[in-house]
Amino acid sequence: MIKVGIVGGTGYTGVELLRVLANHPSAKVEVITSRSEEGVLVADMYPNLRGHLDIGFTVPDIETLAACDVVFFATPHGVAMSMAPELIDRGVRVIDLGADFRIKDIPLWEKWYNHTHTCPELVEKAVYGLPEVNREAIRTAQLIGCAGCYPTAVQLGYLPLLEKGWVDHRRLIADCKSGVSGAGRGASVGALLCETSESMKAYGVPGHRHLPEIRQGLARAANKPVGLTFVPHLTPMIRGIHATLYSVLKDPVDSGLQELFEARYANEPFVDVMPAGSHPETRSVKGSNVCRISVHRPQNDDTVVVLSVIDNLVKGASGQAVQIMNIMFDRPENEGLTQVALMP
Amino acid sequence: MIKVGIVGGTGYTGVELLRVLANHPSAKVEVITSRSEEGVLVADMYPNLRGHLDIGFTVPDIETLAACDVVFFATPHGVAMSMAPELIDRGVRVIDLGADFRIKDIPLWEKWYNHTHTCPELVEKAVYGLPEVNREAIRTAQLIGCAGCYPTAVQLGYLPLLEKGWVDHRRLIADCKSGVSGAGRGASVGALLCETSESMKAYGVPGHRHLPEIRQGLARAANKPVGLTFVPHLTPMIRGIHATLYSVLKDPVDSGLQELFEARYANEPFVDVMPAGSHPETRSVKGSNVCRISVHRPQNDDTVVVLSVIDNLVKGASGQAVQIMNIMFDRPENEGLTQVALMP
Amino acid sequence: MIKVGIVGGTGYTGVELLRVLANHPSAKVEVITSRSEEGVLVADMYPNLRGHLDIGFTVPDIETLAACDVVFFATPHGVAMSMAPELIDRGVRVIDLGADFRIKDIPLWEKWYNHTHTCPELVEKAVYGLPEVNREAIRTAQLIGCAGCYPTAVQLGYLPLLEKGWVDHRRLIADCKSGVSGAGRGASVGALLCETSESMKAYGVPGHRHLPEIRQGLARAANKPVGLTFVPHLTPMIRGIHATLYSVLKDPVDSGLQELFEARYANEPFVDVMPAGSHPETRSVKGSNVCRISVHRPQNDDTVVVLSVIDNLVKGASGQAVQIMNIMFDRPENEGLTQVALMP
Amino acid sequence: MIKVGIVGGTGYTGVELLRVLANHPSAKVEVITSRSEEGVLVADMYPNLRGHLDIGFTVPDIETLAACDVVFFATPHGVAMSMAPELIDRGVRVIDLGADFRIKDIPLWEKWYNHTHTCPELVEKAVYGLPEVNREAIRTAQLIGCAGCYPTAVQLGYLPLLEKGWVDHRRLIADCKSGVSGAGRGASVGALLCETSESMKAYGVPGHRHLPEIRQGLARAANKPVGLTFVPHLTPMIRGIHATLYSVLKDPVDSGLQELFEARYANEPFVDVMPAGSHPETRSVKGSNVCRISVHRPQNDDTVVVLSVIDNLVKGASGQAVQIMNIMFDRPENEGLTQVALMP
Repeated sequence: MIKVGIVGGTGYTGVELLRVLANHPSAKVEVITSRSEEGVLVADMYPNLRGHLDIGFTVPDIETLAACDVVFFATPHGVAMSMAPELIDRGVRVIDLGADFRIKDIPLWEKWYNHTHTCPELVEKAVYGLPEVNREAIRTAQLIGCAGCYPTAVQLGYLPLLEKGWVDHRRLIADCKSGVSGAGRGASVGALLCETSESMKAYGVPGHRHLPEIRQGLARAANKPVGLTFVPHLTPMIRGIHATLYSVLKDPVDSGLQELFEARYANEPFVDVMPAGSHPETRSVKGSNVCRISVHRPQNDDTVVVLSVIDNLVKGASGQAVQIMNIMFDRPENEGLTQVALMP
Repeated sequence: MIKVGIVGGTGYTGVELLRVLANHPSAKVEVITSRSEEGVLVADMYPNLRGHLDIGFTVPDIETLAACDVVFFATPHGVAMSMAPELIDRGVRVIDLGADFRIKDIPLWEKWYNHTHTCPELVEKAVYGLPEVNREAIRTAQLIGCAGCYPTAVQLGYLPLLEKGWVDHRRLIADCKSGVSGAGRGASVGALLCETSESMKAYGVPGHRHLPEIRQGLARAANKPVGLTFVPHLTPMIRGIHATLYSVLKDPVDSGLQELFEARYANEPFVDVMPAGSHPETRSVKGSNVCRISVHRPQNDDTVVVLSVIDNLVKGASGQAVQIMNIMFDRPENEGLTQVALMP
Repeated sequence: MIKVGIVGGTGYTGVELLRVLANHPSAKVEVITSRSEEGVLVADMYPNLRGHLDIGFTVPDIETLAACDVVFFATPHGVAMSMAPELIDRGVRVIDLGADFRIKDIPLWEKWYNHTHTCPELVEKAVYGLPEVNREAIRTAQLIGCAGCYPTAVQLGYLPLLEKGWVDHRRLIADCKSGVSGAGRGASVGALLCETSESMKAYGVPGHRHLPEIRQGLARAANKPVGLTFVPHLTPMIRGIHATLYSVLKDPVDSGLQELFEARYANEPFVDVMPAGSHPETRSVKGSNVCRISVHRPQNDDTVVVLSVIDNLVKGASGQAVQIMNIMFDRPENEGLTQVALMP
Repeated sequence: MIKVGIVGGTGYTGVELLRVLANHPSAKVEVITSRSEEGVLVADMYPNLRGHLDIGFTVPDIETLAACDVVFFATPHGVAMSMAPELIDRGVRVIDLGADFRIKDIPLWEKWYNHTHTCPELVEKAVYGLPEVNREAIRTAQLIGCAGCYPTAVQLGYLPLLEKGWVDHRRLIADCKSGVSGAGRGASVGALLCETSESMKAYGVPGHRHLPEIRQGLARAANKPVGLTFVPHLTPMIRGIHATLYSVLKDPVDSGLQELFEARYANEPFVDVMPAGSHPETRSVKGSNVCRISVHRPQNDDTVVVLSVIDNLVKGASGQAVQIMNIMFDRPENEGLTQVALMP
């Protein structure tokens, strides 16, 4: 049994970790921390867990966490970096769902997150948590910086094209739509039902924190810096990200896009390349760890349109983190992750 | 392995059966029928099932169905009664999610459903499919008429009070709110997003088909006919029923309501009596087979208010049907039904 | 031109006042206050008002407000009582959309609002702001305590029955469903889209602050204290209240319910008694000042079911306040209030 | 008083015309037709109109329509072309909200609409109904082919850039998001709440009927054919279109984008250029005839991102049609169109 600790269990990625792990046959949540909810039973805060999980929140404590095999951080940036060094020293493997270990370029990270990084040496050793790119490195990693939600959807959609160099890497446009749970569970006017329902808007057009992360990932795939415009939108739904990805074919007579994608993801348990002509819906992955992708070339023109959908809380966060844990602990990669999406 | 057939797999209760059964360790869907979708892969119609179920719709055929151990009917009323007799003759056990075998009083059924019943003799033998009431009879039944969605939520909420005779059986008011999936997947103006979103309305106030079924169930519990006003409402959400149940205590000084409910459901795997003072939310059971209940006595007056929530497609239909199958085939009652509700 | 002041313009009832008044031909908003948004243009906060209203928020100041003909308080309880006395002394008429002047019984108010009332003498003089009950008193009133949202929907639905004494006043059940805007625009986890969308729940079953207000109004109609159970529910929509009102006919052979309601509201500009058999939808009043009502007697039994819908921000708050202003200043009662509901 | 006829009043653009015209001081709806609803009162079908409009549906009849000053067609393509010729012969002015007269290239129209055009000579004479482009021609036109919903949002966003030639006309990407009302009021599974709520998807990526219309409009602005990729998305809300428009600056050092847009629309009553840095929300125009636009140049790169929002049923259909009627009949352009958007 993998002994699991969770730091920051009260947010949406925290409760989603609990949902996934509650039915995981090889993992057991031993400790879950929250300063604000100390002593509260998890199931009192999240009644969907009643009967599934009999554990309460405790104040974060390094001793208790150090007794775990793996600790997940489901926290805002800045938290994981403050505790990860000691946990790693004591042999605990750390999976950070936050942003502390995603970006290799420390000054870039510090600029976008407006925060001084306290353990740059760990960033270097950390493995970027996107199994479709880094599976082997994940297997033996001590520290994972899990891919963000937008970055997961965007990278999985662009990888086949950029790795093969089929499209102009300088002209990438990622128009992304996210459900409101991406904003987290904090009390904020902007995420009220009355502010977000029956409406659609773009946000962060001048610059969003996921931009440098996506650029880093796409540059790795293209083997050179890329030019990317990234526009996120807030969509009136709870879960889901829909990435609509535009790029320009270098050789306009090229065909074989469908085959390219199918071949790239043939052995991936959680990437589903849909039949040519498909339009994946976010609800088809609601609650599941799957990324569904389709690729189009409208009017046979030289623009490629890739549609990529995930559940931002699962493949975009907690499901992916469990997938990574499975790889790290030599479990079947889909263990505990076989739920069928809820549809309708 | 229980060999399962499903008649009418294209509606919402059909696809929900498939979602639940896809991960059931002891059951395998061998055949699923649909006249209109013959030859279509189930996963092409419901992409959430891609990778989980590799089977296509076939035209209903008695021979193929007769090779199954159990056949579910996820069909409008009138279909099950036309095929059940022969299937039962051939030793197949039948679980009807529709209305054909729920009501014992044939003329009453014919009046409300405006349909001639073609096998009244089977109605007599059929067991009403509500495990919390009929578990033993279900175990050996050949034919089940599953409880409807509203009837499940309402009966589970009233049973403790009526069985013990604590409330006036002549003055029951069930104010129920349902998500739109209760209207099914048929193309109708009334269930369009633009007609149902951002709105709330009552419907069927003069009379709804679930009224006689609920009355029959409550009369059984009270051991006498009951007086019930039942008002269903359409709520702008996909899944969920919230039943708000009013009744009048006979002995106003009585206490022990909380204990009464806890004792009644102490051994029920799918009924969760919440702590005193709770307000269950439908989302706390979204996608799960649980019914959550709380009981109130506002202002210490003589009116009891019971709040009862289910997912209409799970405990109100397909999950309950699988729970019943588990009982019939001597499987652990919660096998395949341990999913945690999706929250948020 | 009526010179209007608004205290507390940043909440939902505040912006709704602005929306209604922006097109009012006889009123002009001269001042709108908000401590937190001082100096901000109203249209920067509420872009729907761009091009309609060129005014900014100012800090509340008694001199500026005293120059108005009427001041609306769109504030939480406790604010109006602190400023109303001086404004009234200086001849300004005051319309409080909050709760400070609704309840005549001061100790009762103090118990439910957990607050000491600082001007009980004004409560006595204040007129309860429900035009269908108090039109004549409103005409000359100096101070109005506007009816709350639930109380408006519930009273309008019960009045005809109670005024005529047709139903048992001791057995009233008001099952009410409200959109989330009723919770206001404050940052709170409970009103996030991710917490309220795709879900339904009851709240405040042990006791809600609108209960004593409703009881007071119904007692006035019945001319004696009433027995009322009131259960509010949170519904996943922005606007709208649907009240489902149960009562028991004293004389079960009585007929004429439809006529009773039509006669009672024949001359009311904002109460629409729908044809017999109707089920009013909240969307049919979205953005309009209308209350639509239908009355049923299911199965010809002795239970009467009244369905009453309003837009909680219009007839339940700001529209009603403007209707009251029209009456006070001798304007046509529907001036500025003729918008057709937005449907779909 | 302008005498108005409406053909096809039962759909969403029909009822929206009625909502807008109900309060129009200079127009009166004399006749509204529907074959399927003959004899039904409009207010019985659309209860929001109760008390506002006392008229019933009649079978389309050329004599009755010919007595009007103007006839709106709120019909699917193919209907207006069958009746417009005779109406125009008889001096009636015709405003088609459908697609029959939008596209000048008849074979192109016939290919995309899969329909033979029966009056190509009228197409030539028809004026494209987008006042911001064609105001003068509209003034004297006999026949208007109103701009579609997506085409309105996209053209208003691109016009300033293309008219001045600031961006590369060969590399335009319009990523558009629409509410479900764009699909109309027909009974279809695809527009059910249970199919569209809590989900987002692209559709028509290989080709959508609005593509040739948008291309025609943008080519007119650019004075040469344009290269455009257009991807529409279905969004879980009733009303609203959000167009996110990408283009590449020819001269990357250029500035003055904000001024360009402000100057272009300085005198437009229904185009609101928001302050630099804004992110318009569709709800800020819900129910109003306004198009709100903001322009961005993320990271000071050479990609321009224009955000353009409208209410698809108002500025994208019925409001725009009334704006056009006002122009044609020499009324103030905003008469009857001053409603403030409903927010929240």
